[in-house]
Amino acid sequence: MTKGSAAQSGEEGLIARYFAPLAKHAGAFGLADDAAAITPPTGCDLVLKTDGIVAGVHFFPDDPPDTVAKKALRVNLSDLAAKGAKPLGFLLTLVLPEGIGDMWLAPFARGLGADAEAFGCPLLGGDTDRTGGPITISIAALGVVPQGKMLRRAGAKAGDRVVVTGTIGDAALGLLLRRDRSAAARWGLARAARESLEARYLVPEPRLAIAEILRAHASAAMDVSDGLAGDLGKLCRASAVTAEIEVPCIPLSDGARRALSAEPALIETIITGGDDYEVVACVPAGNVEALRQQASAVGVVVTEIGSIAAGEGQPRFLAADGAQLVFAQHSFSHF
Amino acid sequence: MTKGSAAQSGEEGLIARYFAPLAKHAGAFGLADDAAAITPPTGCDLVLKTDGIVAGVHFFPDDPPDTVAKKALRVNLSDLAAKGAKPLGFLLTLVLPEGIGDMWLAPFARGLGADAEAFGCPLLGGDTDRTGGPITISIAALGVVPQGKMLRRAGAKAGDRVVVTGTIGDAALGLLLRRDRSAAARWGLARAARESLEARYLVPEPRLAIAEILRAHASAAMDVSDGLAGDLGKLCRASAVTAEIEVPCIPLSDGARRALSAEPALIETIITGGDDYEVVACVPAGNVEALRQQASAVGVVVTEIGSIAAGEGQPRFLAADGAQLVFAQHSFSHF
Repeated sequence: MTKGSAAQSGEEGLIARYFAPLAKHAGAFGLADDAAAITPPTGCDLVLKTDGIVAGVHFFPDDPPDTVAKKALRVNLSDLAAKGAKPLGFLLTLVLPEGIGDMWLAPFARGLGADAEAFGCPLLGGDTDRTGGPITISIAALGVVPQGKMLRRAGAKAGDRVVVTGTIGDAALGLLLRRDRSAAARWGLARAARESLEARYLVPEPRLAIAEILRAHASAAMDVSDGLAGDLGKLCRASAVTAEIEVPCIPLSDGARRALSAEPALIETIITGGDDYEVVACVPAGNVEALRQQASAVGVVVTEIGSIAAGEGQPRFLAADGAQLVFAQHSFSHF
Repeated sequence: MTKGSAAQSGEEGLIARYFAPLAKHAGAFGLADDAAAITPPTGCDLVLKTDGIVAGVHFFPDDPPDTVAKKALRVNLSDLAAKGAKPLGFLLTLVLPEGIGDMWLAPFARGLGADAEAFGCPLLGGDTDRTGGPITISIAALGVVPQGKMLRRAGAKAGDRVVVTGTIGDAALGLLLRRDRSAAARWGLARAARESLEARYLVPEPRLAIAEILRAHASAAMDVSDGLAGDLGKLCRASAVTAEIEVPCIPLSDGARRALSAEPALIETIITGGDDYEVVACVPAGNVEALRQQASAVGVVVTEIGSIAAGEGQPRFLAADGAQLVFAQHSFSHF
């Protein structure tokens, strides 16, 4: 119950040691001021996003600190990508329990710095606080788009094709594997397949490479963080449309395909589980091929999975035989 | 350990009920998209700040939720004010333990909305997450200044006068009063004086009214959040100068004055305690009177307390007899 922020000797030292080296933008003043000052590019809108992760909720307390840092930043970058934005920088609030010291902070800062560099998204400022609870990391990310050009959830039109990037369901399966060590054997997964699914849960891949391509071709987009079914449902509500998805068209990794063939009920986990951090976008039919080719040229696979239809209601997920899948819940909620 | 963010039904409902009404900026899209999009004013720099508060660390778990919300926003607005910036909006990460429901959220949102309105700082976006720990609130605030004009910690020159807004030490005494109910009687405080000090701890007063006036007259400034001695020390280090402060000139409230006369050792709490959220600024001597008058015209008292000197080292705090006060620590640190 003391003052606004952990201070001076302790906090100043920690910032100087671990975080000042990451603050490479001139406007961050090496984290030696109270705020950052940046001149936004002319003709641009700022795209603003904040997302937090909490130990024991969004990651395991014993996850490697560098992957925790990457996940904290990437869940925000994933949103910037889906909105068609280029990263400008980020602010970090790092809330730490007693006992978190150099052993954790050094790799955390290393992971964060590597990603800040890789994604061109410098640390602009931050705050470090103590807590009686678990490690809690909140990041506010800033991006830019040409004025008025942020990709919205609203904007999808009947007839648009629905596409997704990458593969769906890996992270949700990875989480199951973390929780139940026997699942890998049950699903007949080799070690590499298991590790690959678990890695998707640990460190998502923000699709920044195609942010501009999405902006050029899509009518609406969002990132898939709370499950494909639920998130596409949100997009449809915002666009006042519905959608029809061909389940056999949903792109799956080899590991997910293998797990699914061993345990067909996993289709619900794949479609409604969270942490994909892929992009779901609605694209006028005439743009799909250009989007797919341009995305492919920068290493991102884009797959058509269905189409937008007039009307309201949850998107319908249709099996190969045309039967509609019914889910217990469409996406994950802690509330 | 599930997905990036609390989702859909629960979280969507909570956002729609409590937070969407606060998102009055068109670019917040009523919180019905994944990110905000705002067109920054031309010719301006963005001033970016993030600060978090944690139950049991920065506020008491049983503090009224509306004051918790106000404190969370105001600790950030205080920085914007000291940097000479006008608020543009803010992002909120709200991390809640199980069992926090409408009884807490309704007044929290009400307090937050009242302040967003009062300070012209709309909610632009946010994230709500579960935690196994205490309530944790992180806010990222955006402000604007004319290009290149953010007030810095660096910039103070030998000969500048040191001024502070309002009164110093009230919040630190208010915290002592919260922790030790017998202190009020020991210090001879009437109920009104006790409540006034406690209120300063609960809800700081960001000095946004004089942000532009500070920019016009000050050479360096920061907000006092970790104690006057420590924060002025940080400003001096950034400016490569030192300072000499006349302790009898430090402005005190009636309650603080009374407590100090009953217990002279409290001077250390007053000068090194945190949570003042006043501004300390360095002002060329010729500007002091104009600053004081213009601030007074908008209801903010500005008091000269000493001057900047060439050299290095912690600011010296001199008693009436010229003796230098020596503090156990210059400012508060959790680390």
